Amino acid sequence: MRPERVTVVEVGPRDGLQNEAAAIAAADKVAFVDLLSAAGLAVIETCAFVSAKWVPHMADSAEVFARITRRPQVRYTALVPNLAGLDRAHRAGVGEVAVFAAASESFSQRNINQTIDASLDTYRQVCERAGELGMRVRGYVSTAFGCPFEGDVPPARVASVAAALIEMAVFEVAISDTIGIAHPGNVRPVVDAVASRVPVSRIALHLHDTRGTALANVLAALELGVSTFDASCGGLGGCPYAPGATGNLATEDLIYMLDGLGIETGVELEALVAASRFMESRVGHAIPSRYYQAVRRPQSAAAVQKSKRD
Amino acid sequence: MRPERVTVVEVGPRDGLQNEAAAIAAADKVAFVDLLSAAGLAVIETCAFVSAKWVPHMADSAEVFARITRRPQVRYTALVPNLAGLDRAHRAGVGEVAVFAAASESFSQRNINQTIDASLDTYRQVCERAGELGMRVRGYVSTAFGCPFEGDVPPARVASVAAALIEMAVFEVAISDTIGIAHPGNVRPVVDAVASRVPVSRIALHLHDTRGTALANVLAALELGVSTFDASCGGLGGCPYAPGATGNLATEDLIYMLDGLGIETGVELEALVAASRFMESRVGHAIPSRYYQAVRRPQSAAAVQKSKRD
Repeated sequence: MRPERVTVVEVGPRDGLQNEAAAIAAADKVAFVDLLSAAGLAVIETCAFVSAKWVPHMADSAEVFARITRRPQVRYTALVPNLAGLDRAHRAGVGEVAVFAAASESFSQRNINQTIDASLDTYRQVCERAGELGMRVRGYVSTAFGCPFEGDVPPARVASVAAALIEMAVFEVAISDTIGIAHPGNVRPVVDAVASRVPVSRIALHLHDTRGTALANVLAALELGVSTFDASCGGLGGCPYAPGATGNLATEDLIYMLDGLGIETGVELEALVAASRFMESRVGHAIPSRYYQAVRRPQSAAAVQKSKRD
Repeated sequence: MRPERVTVVEVGPRDGLQNEAAAIAAADKVAFVDLLSAAGLAVIETCAFVSAKWVPHMADSAEVFARITRRPQVRYTALVPNLAGLDRAHRAGVGEVAVFAAASESFSQRNINQTIDASLDTYRQVCERAGELGMRVRGYVSTAFGCPFEGDVPPARVASVAAALIEMAVFEVAISDTIGIAHPGNVRPVVDAVASRVPVSRIALHLHDTRGTALANVLAALELGVSTFDASCGGLGGCPYAPGATGNLATEDLIYMLDGLGIETGVELEALVAASRFMESRVGHAIPSRYYQAVRRPQSAAAVQKSKRD
């Protein structure tokens, strides 16, 4: 059942940088996206066309989109909250957008100030308009493994929201562990519930490594046939030593494990490390990816000799 | 095949503190061990009876052993390199010791200045003498997933060393990912090779989280029936931001996942966090455990609201 090939959706330029404290210059965002496409990433969530009042880091999205070097075969995508965002994305030359629904009513209210149903109504309009414009729409389902306000979220409710998105012609649902509490014990019930209503080929997992479980969750999901995973280069967006750390799964860590499993991704690990190295100087803190830390500061043979007994 | 119950071998006081830069006072080591037993850990590798010249942090092992509060049912163990170490451990009241063999000849030479065969001869004597003294012996097999000097290590060689240890009456072999490069793709061949020569009930895994894969490796090993895992409270011994970081699997992260899988351990997660909090002030750096970081600095609802879109 384990897939032979996995699609990695790189969300660093959007979910990563949006949650960084430091503002990153448009030129650096462009360079970052170009390093990511050079690393072989085939899907890059590049930016968000959202209110600059709410997400100031994404105010230069049109500029970033205009300046990146578009490689054929790479899907450069953008987050949009509504029709206005979709139109801005379309004018900027974006061919694929993502919308974000929640599986928890409280989170929906506080994150986007709408009920789940109201947000789905909005996304239905976005999907219709996107279809007219020849654009594809992806759908996030946030708080799928738990909500910071409500606690447990029933898998059936996650499945309902996912099914509603698929019915409005969203091509893929990204089941999201917004607060990083998923573990292999709840990956199975949630994925099983969604897979009962949505083809598994249309299910992606969007994991945060807040509690260190993200790769174990990927492994559990692979066994269920999931073959699309979101990740953020370097683990950007979740500095582990900052308050409010959210800890995106680091793309390097994911690729290291998938390479080890012999699963094809088309992504070059060392090129990812180069992209992280570039951003490390810009974000103003150490890059959280464990793989990055390991290869950036390799153990010398002498250090191994001195320090280890097992 | 997945076990219903897992034994966690807490190695923080030994493998953790031994690799910390800061010297820890004996009284603090004692307090740490007592916090760990209070957390429900049933096996605690407490110290090492090795040359103080080579491992100065372990010079006070006899004192630590004398001062800990011994709880019934808890196994307090110690690392020993040879007969002299065994005798010191015995005089200190230790009932169970661990020896450390390597699966890689180069690592054996550089770590303990002996060939693998010579070290096994030593451990055979240790086992004989331990038997006479009524002591149990555990055996590490280091560099089981790769060697910093030789690279790949054949699983058959790991199995040979493990089998040799079991033949000399070692009760359990701890298959060790010394440099933290294991991934689920090589966990299976290594565990399968060892399990072809050693009952799986006598196989433990000793993992380092250097590349973030430790929990995924645990998950893979659980599916193979492995039910004993080493871990270090807080992930001590591997500060991710220090050169030569080795990154022990953090006990908190392990327990969080095992709790999620409904696997019994007898360990209280919140009590582990208290033990990490105690040591954080002593080691002089942030505790690397992801779980610890997540609960120590919880996301406020406002931070979630402001920062998240998926």
